[in-house]
Amino acid sequence: MTKIIIIGSGNVAQHLIRTFQDAASLNSKIELVQVFARQKDSVAHLIDLDKIATNFDDLLEADLYIISVSDDAISKVSSQLPFNNRLVVHTSGSVALDALDTKNRKGVFYPLQTFSKDKMVDFKVIPICLESENATDFQLLEKVAKTISEKVFAINSEQRKALHVAAVFVNNFVNHLYQIGHSICTENQVPFEILKPLIQETAEKINTLTPEEAQTGPAKRHDSKTIAAHELFLTNKNQSTIYKILTQSIQDNGKKL
Amino acid sequence: MTKIIIIGSGNVAQHLIRTFQDAASLNSKIELVQVFARQKDSVAHLIDLDKIATNFDDLLEADLYIISVSDDAISKVSSQLPFNNRLVVHTSGSVALDALDTKNRKGVFYPLQTFSKDKMVDFKVIPICLESENATDFQLLEKVAKTISEKVFAINSEQRKALHVAAVFVNNFVNHLYQIGHSICTENQVPFEILKPLIQETAEKINTLTPEEAQTGPAKRHDSKTIAAHELFLTNKNQSTIYKILTQSIQDNGKKL
Repeated sequence: MTKIIIIGSGNVAQHLIRTFQDAASLNSKIELVQVFARQKDSVAHLIDLDKIATNFDDLLEADLYIISVSDDAISKVSSQLPFNNRLVVHTSGSVALDALDTKNRKGVFYPLQTFSKDKMVDFKVIPICLESENATDFQLLEKVAKTISEKVFAINSEQRKALHVAAVFVNNFVNHLYQIGHSICTENQVPFEILKPLIQETAEKINTLTPEEAQTGPAKRHDSKTIAAHELFLTNKNQSTIYKILTQSIQDNGKKL
Repeated sequence: MTKIIIIGSGNVAQHLIRTFQDAASLNSKIELVQVFARQKDSVAHLIDLDKIATNFDDLLEADLYIISVSDDAISKVSSQLPFNNRLVVHTSGSVALDALDTKNRKGVFYPLQTFSKDKMVDFKVIPICLESENATDFQLLEKVAKTISEKVFAINSEQRKALHVAAVFVNNFVNHLYQIGHSICTENQVPFEILKPLIQETAEKINTLTPEEAQTGPAKRHDSKTIAAHELFLTNKNQSTIYKILTQSIQDNGKKL
């Protein structure tokens, strides 16, 4: 039985608490023995009150401590833990392993997904990227990760940095392009609804094609007439700048990418 | 019974031929009576040989002629048709109704989706944007569109132009960001596979949230430390330019968008 404690009460922490509780009820190999939250209220809907610690000195003994707090707070929280030589991991995509205090054995348990407070996610398909200082700890992390997900990867801090930057492109930036599409529709009295099947299919396509194979459109086929018409249409300077730069980038494909 | 003829043998034409054949077999209200293709071979796998015309003079009488050829060829093809006052439509998102020759009644039958040659699509969920010069023709187009799709919209040429530009952002440009994510992964020995669930969820989210509500990430939360680390990481000038511009655009949200 692997005893787990989650430290944190934010968005990711709440998803992990819910998921580990569910997994523990189906699998006797793990148990979520405690959650640390500054305010009991923040997680009281997820776990029994007597399992919530609000003071670091009340933390129980466990095999794995998962710090799931904002990036900036990880170092400080890890240094406040009142014990040594235990396995302590964080859940961040953009923080190095070394940010954790050296008094404990360090690791990373990074679920790569976009979490919204009000939208449930199926953890089974969420890739979990693991890193640790030694093989024994890695095995434990792997065992725990596999109780909640089918996709578990060994990813070191350098790789994780690349992954996090790539995730910004395919998630944050992609969503922003959805927003621009939404604005263009709204400004022209077109229901954004019409674009939703296209958006789904665009994402769906890369399950069977590489993004390079899936690329279509006026930029790709160097259709300068359509491109000129689009540039004329876009009176918003910001939209127009983004249109030009991404069109150029598609056309430069082989060279600069 | 509405008789339909498809003129063209490209990607969209082939999807339409397949879809109308299927629909006609289930629904006696429509019939695909003929396909025009310069070369019989190009569509011989989709329809009986005796229903393929290779010469405009062999075109039969029909209630609806759907020109599905490259944007540049629409005008010319429409002027080559050897008849008058029939309903002739094109399937392009970026060509105005007026591009069609005035000798026939003009219309647009624009299925908004990204079509790949080797990937089947479910037409039932593809929005079809219709335009015509008069109400009777619109009713016919609507009747036909509804035999293949559940999502039929009246969209005039101005609206369609906006829709097409918006589609470039949410499809072509989004796919290019996938490609950049793919490059970053490859360059850093990370399997692109890990990003796929994130990509799917990003698209999925906007079925329940507006893009603005769904926006997350360092740009949105003005996390200048992470942004600086990402900019340092991106040594590729093109990727770095796109990173900066999209980060700025997310942060300018209210102002410039």
